[in-house]
Amino acid sequence: MPALNFNIEKKIKGQLGRAGIISTPHGEIKTPAFVVVGTKATVKALTPEQVKTLGAQVVLANTYHLYLEPGDELLKKAGGLHQFMNWSGPMMTDSGGFQVFSLGVAYEEEGINKFLGLERAEENKKRASNHEKLAKIDEEGVTFRSHLDGTEQRFTPEKSMEIQHNLGADIIFAFDECTAPTAPHDYQQEAMERTHRWAARSLAHHRKLNLGAKLPSQALFGIVQGGRFKNLREESARTIASMDFDGFGIGGSFEKKDMDTAVGWVNAVLPENKPRHLLGIGEPEDLFGGVENGVDTFDCVSPTRMARNGTIQTKTGRINITNAQYQNDFSPIEPDCGCYTCGHYTKAYLAHLFRAKEMLAATLASIHNLYFSVQLVEHIRQSILADQFQEFKQSFLSHYHS
Amino acid sequence: MPALNFNIEKKIKGQLGRAGIISTPHGEIKTPAFVVVGTKATVKALTPEQVKTLGAQVVLANTYHLYLEPGDELLKKAGGLHQFMNWSGPMMTDSGGFQVFSLGVAYEEEGINKFLGLERAEENKKRASNHEKLAKIDEEGVTFRSHLDGTEQRFTPEKSMEIQHNLGADIIFAFDECTAPTAPHDYQQEAMERTHRWAARSLAHHRKLNLGAKLPSQALFGIVQGGRFKNLREESARTIASMDFDGFGIGGSFEKKDMDTAVGWVNAVLPENKPRHLLGIGEPEDLFGGVENGVDTFDCVSPTRMARNGTIQTKTGRINITNAQYQNDFSPIEPDCGCYTCGHYTKAYLAHLFRAKEMLAATLASIHNLYFSVQLVEHIRQSILADQFQEFKQSFLSHYHS
Repeated sequence: MPALNFNIEKKIKGQLGRAGIISTPHGEIKTPAFVVVGTKATVKALTPEQVKTLGAQVVLANTYHLYLEPGDELLKKAGGLHQFMNWSGPMMTDSGGFQVFSLGVAYEEEGINKFLGLERAEENKKRASNHEKLAKIDEEGVTFRSHLDGTEQRFTPEKSMEIQHNLGADIIFAFDECTAPTAPHDYQQEAMERTHRWAARSLAHHRKLNLGAKLPSQALFGIVQGGRFKNLREESARTIASMDFDGFGIGGSFEKKDMDTAVGWVNAVLPENKPRHLLGIGEPEDLFGGVENGVDTFDCVSPTRMARNGTIQTKTGRINITNAQYQNDFSPIEPDCGCYTCGHYTKAYLAHLFRAKEMLAATLASIHNLYFSVQLVEHIRQSILADQFQEFKQSFLSHYHS
Repeated sequence: MPALNFNIEKKIKGQLGRAGIISTPHGEIKTPAFVVVGTKATVKALTPEQVKTLGAQVVLANTYHLYLEPGDELLKKAGGLHQFMNWSGPMMTDSGGFQVFSLGVAYEEEGINKFLGLERAEENKKRASNHEKLAKIDEEGVTFRSHLDGTEQRFTPEKSMEIQHNLGADIIFAFDECTAPTAPHDYQQEAMERTHRWAARSLAHHRKLNLGAKLPSQALFGIVQGGRFKNLREESARTIASMDFDGFGIGGSFEKKDMDTAVGWVNAVLPENKPRHLLGIGEPEDLFGGVENGVDTFDCVSPTRMARNGTIQTKTGRINITNAQYQNDFSPIEPDCGCYTCGHYTKAYLAHLFRAKEMLAATLASIHNLYFSVQLVEHIRQSILADQFQEFKQSFLSHYHS
């Protein structure tokens, strides 16, 4: 019995995109779906009930962050991620690869730099621009330093599986090497081939950890890499597809144009009957482009990160709620928005909360921005089911200015 | 028709304490009641729904803070405090007196000092210790500097009424002079007599502002002062009681022993048929002592302020959730607590959130601490109705260690 079922309900005519349902031990994910990020076992500034009410079906937590704090062993003792953070729906954890290889990106996170202070933040930025020297890669795994206390740490495919088994998410990911988008073909190929060997080791160790378990409760997704090179992306898709994964992740650093190229190349090769997750992507244009090119699920921190900064999504583009013009604006962000924030508060109130540095500012803005992304992908789903994907895409993007 | 009704349901035998119901245009307040503080039109880190769910009946916002940011004129345009902040239940605003006279105290607030940075915080502490020089008092009113931008501002009894009418709370307070507890008898008397003249002016201006209104929608409470001197407290209570206020506030800086003395002296004089609010008091011992000595409502920032600092109330006393021992404690703060936090989260999770500096930490801790205070006063109410106040007091305080 598989740990996950995926049923396709409807396809976009003549394209890779589809609407479907992923069934997990903690419930269904109707796809395409926007996955909300809860890095450290909390969707920042929100209770799980608020997350559920805004329509989110699934939360992704970060293996790297939870391994460092509070530690996966502690989470296992706590009964796993779901119980620890009070989220009863489906969950994903990433492989830890992205954060390990792009510590600079992790270092640039708002909270961490605030925590470290300005001086260390600057130092981290310098280090980030040179990040391959920070994380030492060998055939067995990666050695890196904790961004919290500088201690030396080591991830291997086996270690990533052990951590993710302790965390207990419904969907987990094979350990991969996440390359810099600027890396040349030769390096991309070398890293991709290592990622394939690590994929096989992840799968083998996942099975070993499942021995003796009555039912395999966690689904394992293999990650396709290969940068922006068509031959590598297709080779990676073929190789990962040949292994017995429950679904697939598409890794890498993407721009808008990559949806039609890299993402499309991969999904044209991957088997149709397994779900595909695009890691770390969430801009409206990319969501349309990703779905059109066969992506089922997306995760991205940008809705909540923007929200904490006062940047609010609207159907015509982003606004900065701290701008003077909103202080006297007694209308909601969007009168026709169905989110809790728009139903109960004005722009003037939000502007006040941000100016007064009140925590409720982050909560209300995060609810709106997450609702925006989650409902946008839900509308994309409905448009596929109604055979109107292209019409909806055209209509939405003609109003939205990024 | 009065702006407020107060019905006494039951008295504590042989004492000043009672249980009753205050009826306001936005609903009932069953007393004794703990009033939740929402300084800047938000109960810090909570939505109004979370505030309501934890059992709070009434929210008090601060006139001084709202006057400075976002301004009472803006709040009037927004339709008043209730509509601005999405709180449909009863509300109070204080007179602004306390913050104006104790700017040092306002300056010491966590959020403000974080905002100002360490250097200005230190400067403010120095200024605070010398605060009478900062706020210049004359017969007409008080001139002071905004803690936000240093601009010179002026409050008079008339100005305080105008601001509070713009804010639109159900219960508002007459403008008073809040003296330092160390001030000598002569100064307490001088300040008290000025507070009485300001009370008369507040009442007159309140009536003037109500002219033409169909119904008086706001109730005005007069504030009794007089420091720790029995003769002054009694004189102040008699004087304020002789004016046509809808209820009373008891102002000043209090310690535990003052419940039996200053608070008791005042309430023995005040007419029984009007409600009495004790300003800024919230420790468990003081809540019992205050109720026993005739107080109907209390407000205090300490439950939320402590919560943001990781200090959690329990029936045996406070704990600091960031202590190492709680990192592996997979039980709720209090297994028999009915709050949302204790129903869904462990101490280990709260400890993790505080260590990771996650905003949800403040939300969950605030919910528990507010529930603790609100429900404690509700239990006190039930004990009065059941003729068991002394038994409950003795039982609770025998376990609680402050």
